[in-house]
Amino acid sequence: MANSTAAMLVIGDEILSGRTRDANMHYLAQELTKHGIELKEARVVSDDRDAIIAAVRALSDAYDHVFTSGGIGPTHDDITAECIAAAFGLPIGVRDDARALLQAHYDATGLELNEARLRMARIPEGASLIDNPVSAAPGFTLRNVHVMAGVPAIFEAMVAGVLARVARGQPLLSQSLRIQRGEGEIAGPLAKLAEDFPDLSIGCYPFQKDGPFGANVVIRGTDAARLDAAVTRLAAEVAE
Amino acid sequence: MANSTAAMLVIGDEILSGRTRDANMHYLAQELTKHGIELKEARVVSDDRDAIIAAVRALSDAYDHVFTSGGIGPTHDDITAECIAAAFGLPIGVRDDARALLQAHYDATGLELNEARLRMARIPEGASLIDNPVSAAPGFTLRNVHVMAGVPAIFEAMVAGVLARVARGQPLLSQSLRIQRGEGEIAGPLAKLAEDFPDLSIGCYPFQKDGPFGANVVIRGTDAARLDAAVTRLAAEVAE
Repeated sequence: MANSTAAMLVIGDEILSGRTRDANMHYLAQELTKHGIELKEARVVSDDRDAIIAAVRALSDAYDHVFTSGGIGPTHDDITAECIAAAFGLPIGVRDDARALLQAHYDATGLELNEARLRMARIPEGASLIDNPVSAAPGFTLRNVHVMAGVPAIFEAMVAGVLARVARGQPLLSQSLRIQRGEGEIAGPLAKLAEDFPDLSIGCYPFQKDGPFGANVVIRGTDAARLDAAVTRLAAEVAE
Repeated sequence: MANSTAAMLVIGDEILSGRTRDANMHYLAQELTKHGIELKEARVVSDDRDAIIAAVRALSDAYDHVFTSGGIGPTHDDITAECIAAAFGLPIGVRDDARALLQAHYDATGLELNEARLRMARIPEGASLIDNPVSAAPGFTLRNVHVMAGVPAIFEAMVAGVLARVARGQPLLSQSLRIQRGEGEIAGPLAKLAEDFPDLSIGCYPFQKDGPFGANVVIRGTDAARLDAAVTRLAAEVAE
């Protein structure tokens, strides 16, 4: 059986303006690869209702899972939860279990659960909560969309919570071969290798160090024996 | 007149597998903001023909400019140029001026301009070349799509080349206010501020340092006087 597919949706003006460099995409990509889920696409959109709704619908239709980050805090620009509800035509409101989580957190820290903070307990109908061990305000899973915070420490904790519930696929294995020749010299053998091993993904990443160009060839797949066969053949072919 | 809009398309399996952390999106976001062009969306797709073509068409239709990175090297997984041509239904072939650039580069470095390397001289009909001062193989602009290399040093040089030709908009200005109170405490005044200054974008980015939570409020816009007015009002409102 083929592995599950996934997309990521990063929500936030601060990424697109260049103020903040996103860190969550790279983290999620690595975690999904380990878990045997194939990340096929990622998108970044601004804090714009129409843009978020359109992206959620498109990605939710096209892939098995959608992971979102950002826009679930207490301020006016945090509109992710209501956009997810709107994308599926579902109502959203403050939910008792989410409110209780926030109440306990603010009681413990001596802060008030005011109206703005209570917005973080608004959960679309039918969603299940994602635990937030850092600052209590939960994420949620609605259908195949997992809605998580943008703050990296919280995002990472939430990803762990979601992946614990999601079926594990065959982990994607990879082997690398570092070759001290330019990409242009090994492109022929690589193309032939890709043809003969259609079940593997073969990437070539050039580098330049101390003058001459070289390339790292990375071969990925789920069958260790096939990976070994491909790497062995390539090493023999490109040996100088 | 409103500023131009742009999207970015990052092409490469290595980003989605988590092997490589993309650096070009953050760089481009900063450069476009300085240049007065609004980056509205970014996408990452794999080295897959259908995915690249669909994304190029969607983004080219929706925005004034599309900037792509990745997939223009000499190996079998470098399929960006032919996908761009296909997206617009245009032919692609080796072009004399692009071949001459490569020939001069390889003559100077004592390497052979072989068949694989010659692929980098394939340019869709009607495109204009983007200079590559690092390794000669050019990028190109076709209609509103600027096609650039994924290697950051080359990408950055190509962005400079493109932006020198693209009309400058009103630079997006920003002012920040660091507030030592939780987001949830200032959400009310912020929402009212956003209502009263619809021409400005007001973002709130929480942080936690040495215990208490705080937030950086970032106000963005093109009119310096309006920014001053908004920041002054907010500072007075949230003063403890």
